[in-house]
Amino acid sequence: MNRFLDLADFTRDQVADLLDLAQRLQTHPEPQALAGRILGLLFLNPSLRTLSSFQAGMMRLGGSAFVATAGQGTWQVETRVGAVMNAGAAEHVREAIPVLASYCDALGIRSFAEGKDLAADLADGQFRMMAEMCDKPFVNMESAVNHPCQALADWKTMDDLEVPRGGKFVLSWVYHPRALPLAVPAATVHMAAQRGMEVVVLRPEGYSLPEPLMAKAHAAAAASGGSVTETAQRSAALAGAHVVYAKEWGSPLHYGDAEAESRLRQPLGDWCVRESWFRNARPDCHFMHCLPVRRNVAVADEVLDGPRSRVIREAANRMVVQMAVLYRMLKG
Amino acid sequence: MNRFLDLADFTRDQVADLLDLAQRLQTHPEPQALAGRILGLLFLNPSLRTLSSFQAGMMRLGGSAFVATAGQGTWQVETRVGAVMNAGAAEHVREAIPVLASYCDALGIRSFAEGKDLAADLADGQFRMMAEMCDKPFVNMESAVNHPCQALADWKTMDDLEVPRGGKFVLSWVYHPRALPLAVPAATVHMAAQRGMEVVVLRPEGYSLPEPLMAKAHAAAAASGGSVTETAQRSAALAGAHVVYAKEWGSPLHYGDAEAESRLRQPLGDWCVRESWFRNARPDCHFMHCLPVRRNVAVADEVLDGPRSRVIREAANRMVVQMAVLYRMLKG
Amino acid sequence: MNRFLDLADFTRDQVADLLDLAQRLQTHPEPQALAGRILGLLFLNPSLRTLSSFQAGMMRLGGSAFVATAGQGTWQVETRVGAVMNAGAAEHVREAIPVLASYCDALGIRSFAEGKDLAADLADGQFRMMAEMCDKPFVNMESAVNHPCQALADWKTMDDLEVPRGGKFVLSWVYHPRALPLAVPAATVHMAAQRGMEVVVLRPEGYSLPEPLMAKAHAAAAASGGSVTETAQRSAALAGAHVVYAKEWGSPLHYGDAEAESRLRQPLGDWCVRESWFRNARPDCHFMHCLPVRRNVAVADEVLDGPRSRVIREAANRMVVQMAVLYRMLKG
Repeated sequence: MNRFLDLADFTRDQVADLLDLAQRLQTHPEPQALAGRILGLLFLNPSLRTLSSFQAGMMRLGGSAFVATAGQGTWQVETRVGAVMNAGAAEHVREAIPVLASYCDALGIRSFAEGKDLAADLADGQFRMMAEMCDKPFVNMESAVNHPCQALADWKTMDDLEVPRGGKFVLSWVYHPRALPLAVPAATVHMAAQRGMEVVVLRPEGYSLPEPLMAKAHAAAAASGGSVTETAQRSAALAGAHVVYAKEWGSPLHYGDAEAESRLRQPLGDWCVRESWFRNARPDCHFMHCLPVRRNVAVADEVLDGPRSRVIREAANRMVVQMAVLYRMLKG
Repeated sequence: MNRFLDLADFTRDQVADLLDLAQRLQTHPEPQALAGRILGLLFLNPSLRTLSSFQAGMMRLGGSAFVATAGQGTWQVETRVGAVMNAGAAEHVREAIPVLASYCDALGIRSFAEGKDLAADLADGQFRMMAEMCDKPFVNMESAVNHPCQALADWKTMDDLEVPRGGKFVLSWVYHPRALPLAVPAATVHMAAQRGMEVVVLRPEGYSLPEPLMAKAHAAAAASGGSVTETAQRSAALAGAHVVYAKEWGSPLHYGDAEAESRLRQPLGDWCVRESWFRNARPDCHFMHCLPVRRNVAVADEVLDGPRSRVIREAANRMVVQMAVLYRMLKG
Repeated sequence: MNRFLDLADFTRDQVADLLDLAQRLQTHPEPQALAGRILGLLFLNPSLRTLSSFQAGMMRLGGSAFVATAGQGTWQVETRVGAVMNAGAAEHVREAIPVLASYCDALGIRSFAEGKDLAADLADGQFRMMAEMCDKPFVNMESAVNHPCQALADWKTMDDLEVPRGGKFVLSWVYHPRALPLAVPAATVHMAAQRGMEVVVLRPEGYSLPEPLMAKAHAAAAASGGSVTETAQRSAALAGAHVVYAKEWGSPLHYGDAEAESRLRQPLGDWCVRESWFRNARPDCHFMHCLPVRRNVAVADEVLDGPRSRVIREAANRMVVQMAVLYRMLKG
């Protein structure tokens, strides 16, 4: 494996193989497997889990890691092709990426959506261009519309919890003070569809996921025997759910228009997950969220601190699945 | 040892045992003692010594470390229980801490006082809550009213210098452009009392340490055979001193009221330690400070660069004692 | 070797020896050579290559590294001797440096020019003072008027490319939105002269390098059999060039006066390297730049992305030569 850009690039068997390896490394540690190997991490956006779990995972395999964070000790970075760089950014990714690649054995990059042009962000072209600049194994640590490490960790979390392959998976939009990118909902809806689940996207009017993302998820569902639907009807959506997965995202209708998006979002403050949401879900329904989460804005304390919450396990699995990815890339 | 939160949690024998271990690791390095073990470090506030010495100490024992710094490449972190997170902080410590704990074998956290409510900060409840969220060995890298790593390093520094157990230890308030937290003075007065010293807190009117901190120090002195007094009379306080330990802190009378505190502090600019302060001290009186220090504001160059200064040795001992703490936690 | 401050401190034979070692470590890795050794890195200014390549290089030799970045998670640092520290900086380098040195086996520091007093910056006295505060092996990661790691990497790059020792080396000023320090042009002109090259400094009127820097380069050229001249005539300068090395720097005529410097620089926007610059250069003329570079401001995309560009190789060689420096310092 030389690229880990999108879970959709892998078959279900390949995903199962990665998850088996993750499980094996968890139960049978290999503390020298990647001795002498170096992981480079470039962050163009903030991180807690990704920053820590990639370093820790590499160390648990005997390797090392270094971190560069644009604008935080490192130069601000320009990503646009052809830019005339007379503003804040002192360095272009066209230099930064091959340079960092020359120092390490594998490179991870985080680069969120620009949030201006929906079609451009959906194409994730900038990130694929970045991957092309790197001649070493390359990991997507969250791009404009993808977050495959999170998706793989979430898949493992559901396997750990013995959530049925065909179980009901509700991805619910939740409120956030500003419009967030589509990376996690896009990766999540596809992952659950690829896993073969009955996926319901629950969102208020105006917050449908863009058609290309839904089409991709539908294709994955068709191949896996799952399904993908969407609705604004909360109680119907949640009825019988095995998993409720909450996520914040901005309205695609007002992509890049913060003011209009804000007006649409204003009345939606009750889209904060509370225990009452689970009334008609399965009694053992799991609550998931990729973190970070704004408590009592997106999700109430009672849910995060309650017995349904799997958010810490999801985050813990980030390290575990990333170790499998790094192992495959660097050891085969 | 599973928690290193407060030197007061340890008996004098236990402290002596840690200092013996520190000394042993200094003279007989064990470069593989913690091979394969990972230390996580979460900073909610700036650091130079703590940041560097914990990493270096872990590396000197064969282990690894990763760092997350809130607001610097990592999300801003909320610490208040029950907060409605609709402002700057994207992540709550209730998630951040168990997540980081899942990646590492021991976790250190720095979280300064909020500086608004004296009683709340004195209780250090937020920090103890954070420690409770962590199911791995946990180190206090400075909390609202404690800094046990600094206190242990300072104790070792005095042992190294053969300062008598019952010697005279003057903790002197010094000027600073703004009100600083009580963590170091609180830890220092208790440490010196626990060591059995004749402790004098020298401070201008309005800068008495809060009663609960003094009571705790008095109790330690009672157990160790030491004493704790306070005064505003500089020359009497300094007479015969073995050690002068300078520290800046805000007036507890105006806790959380920066303007009133500033008015009280304004005329106190002469509380900057100069060589003349040592006129009636013992000739070999040592000068100590935890660093960072504002030169020629809190302490004059002539003292910091003079023969009495032990500030570099104190800081160097930070790494050494922390290695002992990590060793005890992770190897026993 | 205990200090790596200036390539001028080394004879050509010593430089050749370092480059041989770099080459050997590249072709015959020694992944345990510096096992258990710790490199400390203190950045007072931003970095991408230096930050990453020093860490990665140390790791490739089996050692470890920690990073402290002033003002980014670490306190702001004061460098002026005798300063009354009542403003933003909480820590003085007179403490920070010996403290960090006590934690590591070798220390690297980056501290750019203050940019106010040309004579003071040219003397690089502040940096030499910093080096004196450090009792461990010490590396200049870029000072006010030097960048020996970049110079050594550039020398290696030209050796790799078999650029003749006596080849024509054109250091050309290029446009930048603000006045940049003299460190790289100073190190570069001296390096090329020391290598024995026919060095031409091409710069617009008002951008002559200060006389002490030129005198130092002339002395190096006299010893090596090379030459150093300067001109504002672009086509004559570039004719027959083996290497064009582009660099941005502020006018020494208006050192510390941003407004006057800006007025002088305003009409010079055509000092952006384009492919047309190479019309009369040698057909295989190499293009070099230390990075970061502002695309289409200092250098056009067509050059950076074209076949002449060696900028990635230069940066890749940073790690390689620094490994040789660290190896010599820590292993001999």
